[in-house]
Amino acid sequence: MGEKVDELRESLGVVADLHAAAGVLHWDQQTYMPPGGAGGRAMQLATLSQLAHERFVSDEMDALLEEAESKVADLDPDSDDARLIRKARRDFDKARKVPPEWVGEFTRITALAHQVWEKARAEADFPQFQPHLEKIVQLRRQYVDFFAPYDHVYDPLLDDFEPGMKTTEVKAVFDELRTEQIELVQAIAERGTPVDDSVVHRRFDEQKQWGFGMEVAKAIGYDFQRGRQDKSVHPFTVGFGTGDVRITTRFDPNFLNTALFGTMHETGHAMYEQGIDPAFDRTPLAEGASLGVHESQSRLWENLVGRSRAFWVAFYPRLQETFPGQLGDTDLETFYRAINKVECSLIRVEADEATYNLHVMLRFELEIALMQDTLAVGDLPEAWNTKSEEFLGIVPSDDAQGVLQDVHWSGGMIGYFPTYALGNLIAAQLWAKIEEDIADIERQIERGEFGELLSWLREHIHRHGAKFEPMELLKDITGTGLTAQPYLRYLRGKFGEIYDL
Amino acid sequence: MGEKVDELRESLGVVADLHAAAGVLHWDQQTYMPPGGAGGRAMQLATLSQLAHERFVSDEMDALLEEAESKVADLDPDSDDARLIRKARRDFDKARKVPPEWVGEFTRITALAHQVWEKARAEADFPQFQPHLEKIVQLRRQYVDFFAPYDHVYDPLLDDFEPGMKTTEVKAVFDELRTEQIELVQAIAERGTPVDDSVVHRRFDEQKQWGFGMEVAKAIGYDFQRGRQDKSVHPFTVGFGTGDVRITTRFDPNFLNTALFGTMHETGHAMYEQGIDPAFDRTPLAEGASLGVHESQSRLWENLVGRSRAFWVAFYPRLQETFPGQLGDTDLETFYRAINKVECSLIRVEADEATYNLHVMLRFELEIALMQDTLAVGDLPEAWNTKSEEFLGIVPSDDAQGVLQDVHWSGGMIGYFPTYALGNLIAAQLWAKIEEDIADIERQIERGEFGELLSWLREHIHRHGAKFEPMELLKDITGTGLTAQPYLRYLRGKFGEIYDL
Repeated sequence: MGEKVDELRESLGVVADLHAAAGVLHWDQQTYMPPGGAGGRAMQLATLSQLAHERFVSDEMDALLEEAESKVADLDPDSDDARLIRKARRDFDKARKVPPEWVGEFTRITALAHQVWEKARAEADFPQFQPHLEKIVQLRRQYVDFFAPYDHVYDPLLDDFEPGMKTTEVKAVFDELRTEQIELVQAIAERGTPVDDSVVHRRFDEQKQWGFGMEVAKAIGYDFQRGRQDKSVHPFTVGFGTGDVRITTRFDPNFLNTALFGTMHETGHAMYEQGIDPAFDRTPLAEGASLGVHESQSRLWENLVGRSRAFWVAFYPRLQETFPGQLGDTDLETFYRAINKVECSLIRVEADEATYNLHVMLRFELEIALMQDTLAVGDLPEAWNTKSEEFLGIVPSDDAQGVLQDVHWSGGMIGYFPTYALGNLIAAQLWAKIEEDIADIERQIERGEFGELLSWLREHIHRHGAKFEPMELLKDITGTGLTAQPYLRYLRGKFGEIYDL
Repeated sequence: MGEKVDELRESLGVVADLHAAAGVLHWDQQTYMPPGGAGGRAMQLATLSQLAHERFVSDEMDALLEEAESKVADLDPDSDDARLIRKARRDFDKARKVPPEWVGEFTRITALAHQVWEKARAEADFPQFQPHLEKIVQLRRQYVDFFAPYDHVYDPLLDDFEPGMKTTEVKAVFDELRTEQIELVQAIAERGTPVDDSVVHRRFDEQKQWGFGMEVAKAIGYDFQRGRQDKSVHPFTVGFGTGDVRITTRFDPNFLNTALFGTMHETGHAMYEQGIDPAFDRTPLAEGASLGVHESQSRLWENLVGRSRAFWVAFYPRLQETFPGQLGDTDLETFYRAINKVECSLIRVEADEATYNLHVMLRFELEIALMQDTLAVGDLPEAWNTKSEEFLGIVPSDDAQGVLQDVHWSGGMIGYFPTYALGNLIAAQLWAKIEEDIADIERQIERGEFGELLSWLREHIHRHGAKFEPMELLKDITGTGLTAQPYLRYLRGKFGEIYDL
């Protein structure tokens, strides 16, 4: 048994090495690569991903998997080896169902679509982008058919990001969420005591923002021996094994929140990957359980910790020391309210905790309609604006502020958006359990102590990597499946207080 | 014809992409990688180099080469395609002659030897390293046998770094060089007017050193749209295609020369690769003609330009502005003499222009003796010290200052050292020709103008990449083969004047 699994591990290791190498090249592309490197880098990345794919879907891999599976009956089904084989087989079968010709076409079409989208967004001109998005939707319908039969046309797409999760489950939870969240946001707008957030819009020196962000990242437990922070236009986290998980951050000299909560968000992602069992390195288990679970970790640190009053009891004095001119005249309570201001706005990535999920649900409903062919791509801008009015009470002035704002569709990523909202819900579910297990968690945070919290996350989530499917993991920890209630309770409690509802 | 070459190009392109990816990973390892990344990085690099090797020596590559060759008779033998096929075939045949088992053993032995060498050097303890070096010499003798018959046992080693060059040619040139260079150095020591270089040993702020180095690199023509500078412990240049060629530099706050001439040296390497015809990207032609020619470019900018009086006529005022406290009291002539001080010292990488080649010749003679088995590894420290006395007039106080100082042998690199001296000689040969072709080159340099010089180098050397073998290139440019005379004339002229001989 051991020998067969070792052979499988070695072959999977080669594939993992190629993905890790591609990760380094992506990181470099976003951080330090000079402009002249772009052409060559595209070729290098294409070669790495093609070789990784070839190696992974090879007949040799199939044979190694079969040999390993033939012995798997002797194993505890929850052992690392059994789970590794199961995960590898799952990924393998999915990858093999997609013909190389489709992959080639998809790569070609999305590369072009991405370029056109950049221009279309800059010019707020949806019709430019429309034929490309039509082609992408058509390709995604073909893709879904490779996985027939399915319960819902959206299931195979969702499964790429949330293994094992069904569209009906997401719908059910979003239904639970939608009405109440819209009501809350309306109540805040209509009856809430107004919040003044002008203090976070003062001028903040970038070097000092950098320094404070590093201090926070270290304090909450990011291991800089196995990671680092750099600047990039779009913040991201990328890991090349558990020994090297990096974050990037962007800085806005006129808005404190961008880098501050951006760093905490990425640090949350990074600590997840730093916490995976190192024995999983170079295997398909060395990643998050799903994008939703990954996002739960970033959101937990960014929002449930970083936007809590307790956190600023610990850190506000240090922040004031860092920015005496900007914050010397502002008390903790005013600052706390400022970083939690709720406002219906058009752009998802700038949305606050109370409105964020509404942006996601809007996209989720439109994606399903596109895939079910009940909405034509040509009618998408109008449908977007209608839903924006319905969910957020505002309508974009142009398509750059609306349907063209996100990069995802231009890259062919349909089924990705829900994971952002799932991350929020899972974070709140976990937090409810954490409050049970660590009775004085709020006091610990007020003292700037995060060790017990991080250990809890490591123990229950991080170390398992992708060993368990997301809902398996969630049930195991919280005793229930996905539910919107903890998140709604959290929102009502927090914003009810802030806005005196 | 075109189609066959295109297929070959595409297969070679995949190999080149893998090498480029490995290059990015190496660069990252030396610049930004956190310590925790070391283990994973070693695996990633091993995988990339193994896949690149597999792809390159494959039967498919052989068939593609044969098909391309079958049509090559129709081509101008100096056309890019004909030369590409010839270079690829040459590399392929060499790579195929080395059995994979030998490569595996060599990789294993040198990885271990490198670790032991680091410790042995730190402890100045050669006997620790001895058995590892014995194994390496033995493996290198085996390696040489894969290329039998050969004229000289050192030829196959030299050929890896200087394609087409023979040991007897190097010996002849070194013989020409040795006596005269030793005489010059002795004359300087015995009869020269002493040079005071205390001015370059003052305290120089690192940020200001960085800024001045960047200014110089830009001025001489390094394209930062297709390159960048970072810090590393050991300076190097690395290219990932002609659109992205990077340098690194190290800084010594108490010695101006380290970063200043280090940056010019690496910039010389980098401008070579930036100047290669972009049509050669992703082919075996997209590299320097040889290590010697590569070194000629770094030495030309570092020494023939950077350590010339003309250069400092242009740049010394700026350097004084940058370091008024350190250099305000020092005139150009004193500074010029300081950066050109000749001194017999023990460490090769710190040696000046007049003594540098002596360090190389010492190693060259010892390497040949080891390969011919006329010197046992156990007797190497003694032989080193004897030659050091003979060539430099000084004996290391311990082996860390002597036989253990360089990394090369621990990595199995035998045959590499001569290329450093060849670089000096070639640079001087080229310079003699440049002085003929650009009559006012010295005046141009005094005005800080380098455009015509760089164009000359691009036209005659850079753009050709590895299309021609080094000696072919040199003959084509200078009309003669390798000769020590221009370098000796240059040394006698320059140092005769500085030292009043």
